[in-house]
Amino acid sequence: MNKLRILLSVLVALVTFTPLSAQQNLWQAKGVTSPEVLDDGSVVVRLYAPEAKSVVLKCDFVSGGNVAMQRTDDGVWEYRSEPLASELYCYRFSIDGMADIVDPASSYVMRDVGSLMSYFIVAGERGDLYAPQGVKHGTLSRVWVPMSGHERRMVVYTPAGYERGKGKYPVLYLLHGMGGDEEAWVATGRVVEIMDNLIASGKAEPMIVVMTNGCSKHVAAPGYSEEGMFRPYMSGSMDGTFEAMFKDVVEWVDATYRTIAKPEKRAIAGLSMGGFHAMQISKHYPEMFDYVGLFSAAIFRGESGVEMYEKLEQRLLRQFEHEPKLYWIAIGSGDFLYDENVEYRELLDRLGCKYTYRESTGGHEWRNWRIYLCEFAQMLFKK
Amino acid sequence: MNKLRILLSVLVALVTFTPLSAQQNLWQAKGVTSPEVLDDGSVVVRLYAPEAKSVVLKCDFVSGGNVAMQRTDDGVWEYRSEPLASELYCYRFSIDGMADIVDPASSYVMRDVGSLMSYFIVAGERGDLYAPQGVKHGTLSRVWVPMSGHERRMVVYTPAGYERGKGKYPVLYLLHGMGGDEEAWVATGRVVEIMDNLIASGKAEPMIVVMTNGCSKHVAAPGYSEEGMFRPYMSGSMDGTFEAMFKDVVEWVDATYRTIAKPEKRAIAGLSMGGFHAMQISKHYPEMFDYVGLFSAAIFRGESGVEMYEKLEQRLLRQFEHEPKLYWIAIGSGDFLYDENVEYRELLDRLGCKYTYRESTGGHEWRNWRIYLCEFAQMLFKK
Repeated sequence: MNKLRILLSVLVALVTFTPLSAQQNLWQAKGVTSPEVLDDGSVVVRLYAPEAKSVVLKCDFVSGGNVAMQRTDDGVWEYRSEPLASELYCYRFSIDGMADIVDPASSYVMRDVGSLMSYFIVAGERGDLYAPQGVKHGTLSRVWVPMSGHERRMVVYTPAGYERGKGKYPVLYLLHGMGGDEEAWVATGRVVEIMDNLIASGKAEPMIVVMTNGCSKHVAAPGYSEEGMFRPYMSGSMDGTFEAMFKDVVEWVDATYRTIAKPEKRAIAGLSMGGFHAMQISKHYPEMFDYVGLFSAAIFRGESGVEMYEKLEQRLLRQFEHEPKLYWIAIGSGDFLYDENVEYRELLDRLGCKYTYRESTGGHEWRNWRIYLCEFAQMLFKK
Repeated sequence: MNKLRILLSVLVALVTFTPLSAQQNLWQAKGVTSPEVLDDGSVVVRLYAPEAKSVVLKCDFVSGGNVAMQRTDDGVWEYRSEPLASELYCYRFSIDGMADIVDPASSYVMRDVGSLMSYFIVAGERGDLYAPQGVKHGTLSRVWVPMSGHERRMVVYTPAGYERGKGKYPVLYLLHGMGGDEEAWVATGRVVEIMDNLIASGKAEPMIVVMTNGCSKHVAAPGYSEEGMFRPYMSGSMDGTFEAMFKDVVEWVDATYRTIAKPEKRAIAGLSMGGFHAMQISKHYPEMFDYVGLFSAAIFRGESGVEMYEKLEQRLLRQFEHEPKLYWIAIGSGDFLYDENVEYRELLDRLGCKYTYRESTGGHEWRNWRIYLCEFAQMLFKK
């Protein structure tokens, strides 16, 4: 016992003082506590920067997205917020013109396209949906799937009890936006926490969620394929390739998992470019999905000359002949794609295609997409 | 087509200039390229810090772990290394006394305990094992497993072809060190890349790899359980609790996956505290594992009064009666646990227990643990 204690002390001392080369700084002593979420929902963000002349907090919890931090006597810069609504919030620092600095006192970061952001959650109605609770948890798997002859990476959520059970499940296909990848809905979209919590409380049916990589130029998120550690950028895929090979995904999922392989137990939804994809795919395979969700969708007619995008009206009519159980269009009143969505709804109205419309506040942002996922998931597979 | 192009331009403009609040800075323009790995294996690290007085690069690729960066005229600080051996390297910045800053120009970070580090890979013999190649990829799943009545999070690698095949596989149980968690071997240990590459080249048998959380105080890595976003710290578990409940893991794995549930197709290995666990578990269940790997193991007799740790000699003798096919002890000549490992080998010698010893250079560090995993994996399940 004594010997163990002595060795542990040595271990602590060693890792605290050795350079990165020896220990990767496994257990460093961080100088400050940041972020600190207080009981009233306010947050204190702190940064030790003794020589800095100006520190700006860039975040999504102050109006305008910028606020100057205040220097305290001991070289720590601080910002204290008002009490915040329950939500997941992101932030970074700009220090004397040096931008994009994540909080060195926190190891909680999420990547969105090529950006890292520090984040925290204010508990309450919404934040509790985005944080793990003491409920049964599903499984999250990264798998590789043949699509048009190439193996592509995909993320799959299976609900609690899947591994050891025998039941069959409905499937939600959930697509990311431009520049995103198969990790986006997990990291920034909080899909695991949302699904675990909604299913555990009986608000959503147990379902499988499949997240593909919708950028046909890449087979996987940055760093996960032989493409190596490329710099994530705003690459997209709106040339019909991805949509055309989506059948391979559905077939693979139905052959690999215990799914209920029927349209009434299949949903497809996506954000921004993913909403465009969901619209195109559901129209291209009109008998595949009974539930469609367009979240802040980048609704265009699509590139001309691409067969997939031709004959929009006829194909929509064909899709709606099958009377989808839910065709859900959601967008924020401040979204820069608002007008395109108005136009698209006018087209659907003209064609007599029945959809449900949900308008929120806010713009083209993850905060809305998480809300839309929560709402959409609760409407699925109940009929 | 024109409309699409215009809208995409708007999108780019919008996301480049809007504050974090609207867009999470999805697609920012980074000012510099960093890190840049050149063809000769040297690296250039850059940081835009126009007002800084001193920037120190903390890294594991210069001797001593620290090097001053040089300011160039345009406010960019730079360090150019010598050609480096093929390896995975980590780094951070200290800027005017502000420590632990990851590279704001890169989104490639890994977390080790409570620390984030930027990293890059220099290609070549070793680096190629740690980077994804154009080979068939296995699946990585995060699952929850009942252990002693509590659900605990675990990470499972299944080799390429598992989902759609019918074959049964051997299993390697791989344990982390103190302060680590079930994510450690994936993030810093590069287990997915290593196993994919070794299996694809025929150097390792296709196998399942199971990574548990060996800290009995936590059920999951930071941020993945109802404990919430706690600050990762050097918490350990060397009180016998974890070892005692390990049987539940093996039973669950054998019941859930297509395993070959025999000692000759089961291995257990761990680093540091995980090596201690592997030693204790394999001794406590002497007929469970035919392959044991102790990587820089924190070999102690264990706390007195814990039944699990009593009667070391008798229990080792009982374990070695079953003649494990491989009992592999690996450590670096500079490891602070070196002497304890000498002592342990002397004990095994005295008892007549046969083991294989591998001494490397270096100390108590991930670089060694990745090497040990590569070597150990190639020796498994071949007899």
